[in-house]
Amino acid sequence: MKTAVTEMLGIQYPIIQGGMQWVGTAELASAVSNAGGLGILTALTQPTPDDLRKEIARCRTMTDKPFGVNLTILPSINPPPYDEYMQAIFDSGIKIVETAGNNPKNFIGKFKEHGIKVVHKCTSVRHAISAEKHGVDMISIDGFECAGHPGEDDVPNLILIPAAASAVKIPVIASGGIGDGRAMAAAMALGAQGINMGTRFMCTVEAPIHPDVKAALLKATERDTNLIFRTMNNTSRVLKNAVSDEVVAMEKSGAKFEEVRHLVAGARGKVAIRSGDVNGGIVSAGMVVGLIHDIPTCKDLIERIVRECRESLRAASQMAA
Amino acid sequence: MKTAVTEMLGIQYPIIQGGMQWVGTAELASAVSNAGGLGILTALTQPTPDDLRKEIARCRTMTDKPFGVNLTILPSINPPPYDEYMQAIFDSGIKIVETAGNNPKNFIGKFKEHGIKVVHKCTSVRHAISAEKHGVDMISIDGFECAGHPGEDDVPNLILIPAAASAVKIPVIASGGIGDGRAMAAAMALGAQGINMGTRFMCTVEAPIHPDVKAALLKATERDTNLIFRTMNNTSRVLKNAVSDEVVAMEKSGAKFEEVRHLVAGARGKVAIRSGDVNGGIVSAGMVVGLIHDIPTCKDLIERIVRECRESLRAASQMAA
Repeated sequence: MKTAVTEMLGIQYPIIQGGMQWVGTAELASAVSNAGGLGILTALTQPTPDDLRKEIARCRTMTDKPFGVNLTILPSINPPPYDEYMQAIFDSGIKIVETAGNNPKNFIGKFKEHGIKVVHKCTSVRHAISAEKHGVDMISIDGFECAGHPGEDDVPNLILIPAAASAVKIPVIASGGIGDGRAMAAAMALGAQGINMGTRFMCTVEAPIHPDVKAALLKATERDTNLIFRTMNNTSRVLKNAVSDEVVAMEKSGAKFEEVRHLVAGARGKVAIRSGDVNGGIVSAGMVVGLIHDIPTCKDLIERIVRECRESLRAASQMAA
Repeated sequence: MKTAVTEMLGIQYPIIQGGMQWVGTAELASAVSNAGGLGILTALTQPTPDDLRKEIARCRTMTDKPFGVNLTILPSINPPPYDEYMQAIFDSGIKIVETAGNNPKNFIGKFKEHGIKVVHKCTSVRHAISAEKHGVDMISIDGFECAGHPGEDDVPNLILIPAAASAVKIPVIASGGIGDGRAMAAAMALGAQGINMGTRFMCTVEAPIHPDVKAALLKATERDTNLIFRTMNNTSRVLKNAVSDEVVAMEKSGAKFEEVRHLVAGARGKVAIRSGDVNGGIVSAGMVVGLIHDIPTCKDLIERIVRECRESLRAASQMAA
C-alpha cells in the first residue's frame, strides 16, 4: 500500500499499533513491524529511562524494520522523569514518536531537533488544528469508540475522521473502532491515510497479556465497555467488569474523587493484564472488542486486514459503480 | 448504483431520506425521490389518517418515482390511532414503509399482507436480529451519532454497521452520521447496502424548515448536539440550544420526569422548525451537523454525494492497492 503515512514512516502498510501501557513491549512492537506495520514501544511501560534504552535495543535485535516509541505526557502530582525518557529516545536513535496527552508545543521542538517524525494523538478537531500549527507531522485522531481516553466530546470516528481530515493538511491516522479490513477501508474512504489499532493488537499471540484477559476480550460484545472517570473530566473506556461497574456506580451516586481513586488504586490494569484476574483490575478496551473473535499472530492479522480492506473497497466500488 | 437496496426498492441510488417528524412532507419526499433516492413521508406529521391519505396523493402529483411512509410507533399514554394510519397507508397503495420504535412483530403481518416492503429502524444488533426473525425486509441501523433516538447503548456506526451486517442476512442501511459521499463510501465498505440521512436532508432547499433553523444547523459544529431524556431511558439527540442545555442541566441535577416534561412541553420541535425561534424549541439534529456547510437542492445534494462516494472509493482503492 502507498499512502502519506507509509511514505513518511517507511513502512509497507499504514497500520500502526497504538501505544498501550503495559502492552507495548518489544515482543508486540517487533511482531507488528516485521509484519509490515508500525510497532510502538510504550516508554512508560519501562520503569526507568534506562530500561527504555534496553527495551529499544532489545526490539532492534527482533526486527530491522522501523518502529516507534509512545510517550504519553499526562498531568500528574508525581510525574515520571519525562525529560530523561525523552533523552533515552534521542540517545537510542528512534526516528518515530507517538505523543499523547499534552499540548505538543511543549516538546515538539526537541523532537524535531533530533529528526524525529511526531505522530500526535488527539481527540478533537480543535486539538488537531493546534497540533498541526505547532509542527507535528501527523495526527492520530481518537474517536469516541476508542479504548483509553476518548476525551469529553463523545464524537465518533464516522464524524471525527472526515472533520479532522478536512481541517488539517497533514496526514490523519484513524484511531478507535478499527479492528478489521472493513473499518480500514472505511477510514481511508473518510479521508484517513492510515489506521491505528490498540484493542485488536491486544488480541494477538504476541501481545504480553494473560490468556484469561485475552479470552475475556474475545467474549465481550460491543456493549461490554464502560466509561469511567467521567465525573473527573478524565474519561477512560475500559472493559466492563466488576471493578469498572463499581466505579461507574460510584460516580453515578456522586462519589468524591478520592473515593474513586482509592478503589481504582487497588485495581490497576497492570494487575489484570499480567495476572489474568479479569474481574480484579481495570483493562482498557475499545468498543471494537465486539468485533474481535480470535487471537491470530500479528502477521496473520495484518495480512488478513490488508486482504479484507481491498475486498471491502472492491465490493463497495462495485455497488457504487 | 446497484445494491440490494436499490434493487428491492426500485430506486436509482441507495440513499434514503429518514422519516422526520414535521419535516417529512410531500415537498421533501418528492424532491428526494425525483433525484433518484427514496423520499419518506412521515405519517404522524399529518394530524389525521385522512390528512395522510391526502399527503400521499399530493406526493404522487409531485413524483412518479417510488416513495415510502414512515410510521414510528412509540409507547404513549394517549397514542395516535395507529391502526387508522396503517389503513391509510394500505388504502393509498404505498409499497414501502419505514417502521421504528416498536417491535416489528406487532405489525409486520399486516404490512406483508399488503405486499409492503418493510425497512425497520433499530439501534442495536440484538434488535436487528429480532426484526429479521420477525420478517422485516431491511434493517436501518441507527448509530450513536444519529439525530433523534440513538437508544441507550451508545455504539457508533463504525462498530454498529459491520456488527449488524455480520449478524443478519437481510440488507443493512446505515443511518446516523452520514452527510456526504465519504461517509456513504465508508458505510458501504463497512457492509451497508445503502444509507439513510436525516439531518443532511433538513439542510436542503426543499425541507419545510424555517430558514433561521437551517442557518443554525449550518453554524453548528459536531460538538453542538445534546443528549436529552437520558435519565428516562428515552435518549434523544438534539441541537444544542438554550432549551436543550436547560434539559441537560435539569437531568444532571436529578430533576423528576414531570418537571422535565413540563419544560419540554412548551418547546416542541414543531415550534422552532416552523417559527424559526431557534432557542425556543427542541430541534433534532445528529452530530453530522458539523459537516454540513450549505443548503443545496435535494437533486444537487444527491448528485454530489454520489460523485463524492465514487471519488472516495477510488482514492481509497488507490491507497490500498
